[in-house]
Amino acid sequence: MISKPATRLDSDATPADVRNACRTGQHTTHTAGLAPGYAQANLVVVPKDLAYDFLVFCHRNPKPCPLLDVTDMGNPEPVQTAPGADLRSDLPRYRVFRHGELVEETTDISDYWDDSMAGFLLGCSFTFEQAMQQAGIPVRHLDAGTVVPMYRTNIACTPAGPFTGEMVVSMRMIPAEHVVRAVEVTSRYPAVHGSPVHIGDPEIIGIKDLNDYAWGDAPVSEPGDVPVFWACGVTPQSIAMQIKPDLMITHAPGCMFVTDLPIHQLSAR
Amino acid sequence: MISKPATRLDSDATPADVRNACRTGQHTTHTAGLAPGYAQANLVVVPKDLAYDFLVFCHRNPKPCPLLDVTDMGNPEPVQTAPGADLRSDLPRYRVFRHGELVEETTDISDYWDDSMAGFLLGCSFTFEQAMQQAGIPVRHLDAGTVVPMYRTNIACTPAGPFTGEMVVSMRMIPAEHVVRAVEVTSRYPAVHGSPVHIGDPEIIGIKDLNDYAWGDAPVSEPGDVPVFWACGVTPQSIAMQIKPDLMITHAPGCMFVTDLPIHQLSAR
Repeated sequence: MISKPATRLDSDATPADVRNACRTGQHTTHTAGLAPGYAQANLVVVPKDLAYDFLVFCHRNPKPCPLLDVTDMGNPEPVQTAPGADLRSDLPRYRVFRHGELVEETTDISDYWDDSMAGFLLGCSFTFEQAMQQAGIPVRHLDAGTVVPMYRTNIACTPAGPFTGEMVVSMRMIPAEHVVRAVEVTSRYPAVHGSPVHIGDPEIIGIKDLNDYAWGDAPVSEPGDVPVFWACGVTPQSIAMQIKPDLMITHAPGCMFVTDLPIHQLSAR
Repeated sequence: MISKPATRLDSDATPADVRNACRTGQHTTHTAGLAPGYAQANLVVVPKDLAYDFLVFCHRNPKPCPLLDVTDMGNPEPVQTAPGADLRSDLPRYRVFRHGELVEETTDISDYWDDSMAGFLLGCSFTFEQAMQQAGIPVRHLDAGTVVPMYRTNIACTPAGPFTGEMVVSMRMIPAEHVVRAVEVTSRYPAVHGSPVHIGDPEIIGIKDLNDYAWGDAPVSEPGDVPVFWACGVTPQSIAMQIKPDLMITHAPGCMFVTDLPIHQLSAR
């Protein structure tokens, strides 16, 4: 339910405006295009007994899990990326999983949060797509107005505690003459998945058919395009659904946390 | 006590040779110059109730605490930097602190390690000094055969749980015409402290007198040199001594963990 027109947040809304609209229930849908120029993030919330292992998993798998911020145990404030914000209410919509099953979609997780919860914000590919466009590289699914296709692969993540499984990737068809530049541009943004994990033949990473995607929309391509694959922030959710933790909370698809970090500050040294 | 001549490990010793000599008690002193070309690391071991907070502290303070590897809870094997190695025995010498006080210096910490301990390996400036020398930048203390001077500063680290305090820095006098190049070269190695935290006037970061250093040896300089300051891996030890954890174990000064990571693999993307 959206109690005010979505256009209220168009154009000039700051990250704080977006978060406030989420907190007050005025914005409960996608964040794509909101507060342009600021990094958006995937959210993962786990209880204390999994927090160390998940943090180690992020350290060992920085491409699928580029950690932008992590909370002190029990504190819902992301102090580094949006001081004063509240991860329990400042996203449009959340998904609550118990034992690997989706049990609720909600706009506020205060009832689930206590001193034993920790929140993790992972960089999101929205950010490097803007950088690619600014570099003159066509981003086909944005031009077509669709969601990028995502796939399960045979690329094993480095395990940590109970977290073990295969990487999820997103795929963008890139004109052959722009592929090297696409590597260069995204390499500058390790905090939002960074450089690709694979270029070319999908079968090498265990994808038999590009039309058999697991999330998102169908691929968009033109003659002369090459498939390029980046590690995807859906990876930890995909793995968690396999290991079935007692409780895990994530953002709802497309309903990201909008940080105060200007995208240009994310570029690597 | 050194049961075999130290020269046994000169020249051709591999990282595994060094670790094996530590494990068998044949090498119990400094590691400077051993297994050249491979990254060496600071060790921090803390019990479970501090492990999450320390890992968050490393994430929030990547310059003083560049995390090269972290163990699964209770597992002494650094799986990413030296598979098969054992952090309980493979360093020459350890220091055991209880409530902020040094209680033992030992060559093996197996008696302290149990399922509730976690080990952290932090990048060490030995690595970027090699890169500076290869770039033709004089490294004065290496030429003089002394230890780099280290200082407490007024630069606040970003707190995490109980971990809070000021950054420790190392200082190198760099010829003015090489300062920009020194920033460029070390920027390529964020995993071993990366670019400097300050250039020039020491007072700005709370250092009144360069001859009043807290660790290491006196500064070595020549006319036209500029003081350049890098975040130092002594920071977590300095902070832990202030917050007085029940138990914390580190390497003994200069007695680092020798990893299997070629230095060239540490350069930033």
